[in-house]
Amino acid sequence: MSTAELARFSVNQMTVKQLSLPELVDACVALGVPGVGLWREPVRRYGVEAAARLVGDAGLTVTTLCRGGFLTATDPVERAEALGDNHAAIDEAATLGTDTLVLVSGGLPAGSKDLRGARERVADALAVLAPYAADRGVRLAIEPLHPMYASDRCVVSTLAQALDLAERFPAHQVGVTVDTYHVWWDDQAPAQIARAGAAGRIHTFQLADWTTPLPEGVLNGRGQLGDGAIDMREWKGRVEAAGYTGPIEVELFNERLWARDGREVLAQTAERFVEHVIR
Amino acid sequence: MSTAELARFSVNQMTVKQLSLPELVDACVALGVPGVGLWREPVRRYGVEAAARLVGDAGLTVTTLCRGGFLTATDPVERAEALGDNHAAIDEAATLGTDTLVLVSGGLPAGSKDLRGARERVADALAVLAPYAADRGVRLAIEPLHPMYASDRCVVSTLAQALDLAERFPAHQVGVTVDTYHVWWDDQAPAQIARAGAAGRIHTFQLADWTTPLPEGVLNGRGQLGDGAIDMREWKGRVEAAGYTGPIEVELFNERLWARDGREVLAQTAERFVEHVIR
Repeated sequence: MSTAELARFSVNQMTVKQLSLPELVDACVALGVPGVGLWREPVRRYGVEAAARLVGDAGLTVTTLCRGGFLTATDPVERAEALGDNHAAIDEAATLGTDTLVLVSGGLPAGSKDLRGARERVADALAVLAPYAADRGVRLAIEPLHPMYASDRCVVSTLAQALDLAERFPAHQVGVTVDTYHVWWDDQAPAQIARAGAAGRIHTFQLADWTTPLPEGVLNGRGQLGDGAIDMREWKGRVEAAGYTGPIEVELFNERLWARDGREVLAQTAERFVEHVIR
Repeated sequence: MSTAELARFSVNQMTVKQLSLPELVDACVALGVPGVGLWREPVRRYGVEAAARLVGDAGLTVTTLCRGGFLTATDPVERAEALGDNHAAIDEAATLGTDTLVLVSGGLPAGSKDLRGARERVADALAVLAPYAADRGVRLAIEPLHPMYASDRCVVSTLAQALDLAERFPAHQVGVTVDTYHVWWDDQAPAQIARAGAAGRIHTFQLADWTTPLPEGVLNGRGQLGDGAIDMREWKGRVEAAGYTGPIEVELFNERLWARDGREVLAQTAERFVEHVIR
């Protein structure tokens, strides 16, 4: 595992959430991991400016900040709160020096059965947030989540839907997150990756493998690279053929990985990345 | 709840699997439920011909037999076994007097990451099974399952994929199952229902609601009608606009419903059907 082989590797903070931010930074430096995707909650606990200094002093690139979004509320007070929270997320991204804020749209409001209406409210919110973000050098990356999250987490389920939303705005303002875990099953995804790449809208590329059985609640069963059904090399080839040459972030939510030593999990993840994505 | 309101209602046997076949038939007659969708395993335990007599003597229509399929194996012995089992399923459907055998495609073979190849093997198997079924008056109804089952249960995840497979064969041989639980999230599904209906390929229409959190393994969390995120009336309107006027089968896999008195669950399901689908 050479430095060159890790050149595009970024570890999402959630993959090793058992590590504190300083521990994560230390471990990245020790292993030669050049990039991190950060999460708002631990960064805010540490202090956003302090986190920016810690990561910057270590020479790490912040590839993304996860995450803004949750923009589907119908209640005016909730909508205003959500917009305010997303303005804060954009400010945090700018402070951290990352150009990409990942957005998860949000699910259906309680009692609602109107997916289409919820998606339109996401578009309305983007119209407010995208220029604000662009003014601060931050791009919004709409992340379609797997359809199993459509009701309670993310009404945007496919790359096609995410691009339909993104294309209402300039590419430097709004693009998409391509995450293998969410799109691997979709036979339309390869064409949508080409569509996204042609317009310069692949703002980040994330990896996780698909393993079963899914755990209760289906949130924390993302597989380590190589453990599941997804051909990582094939998806990397697709985003590259579409012109994407940026960082590749590994984002695993997995109770079993979280129960292990975080440095060991990071080392394993880097090894799997080289084995299943790079070589 | 009148007889007219239940005219198109069919209860899938799995919804009340705590009832024996004679108990199910009794309960349907008592409630005025005109149709049942049967499952192979309990029917075989009872005896296929005896089941046909029991259901026929009670005046019930067998709307579907569930299910054939699992046609994705690469191993020649496993493939031959799967074809043999599907020939048997077709024979059973004919004996039961139903014109529709529901097919679930099967997942990826162990270690495989090739969804496209698996879907082609389904097509190869259909070429063998479809004429055999047609000779016995049975139509095959390919059921796309929700993408969360793509690796371990069904590589056909969308109506578009199911129709791409079905359209290689005459409509009276191969069509699709439209099940709200599996397609509700898909913004392409309405257009695909129109495509299916125009070609006479909606061979059955099934209902279940989408409720969260999903249980471990995500098999047995299908919601009672009205409990979840799906607008049943809207989907009924879509299949009807596409020309479908047949039975509407309610198929719930739900541990909580199975733990209750089966006759009570059947009565509740009929009431929910009238409330959320018919009135």
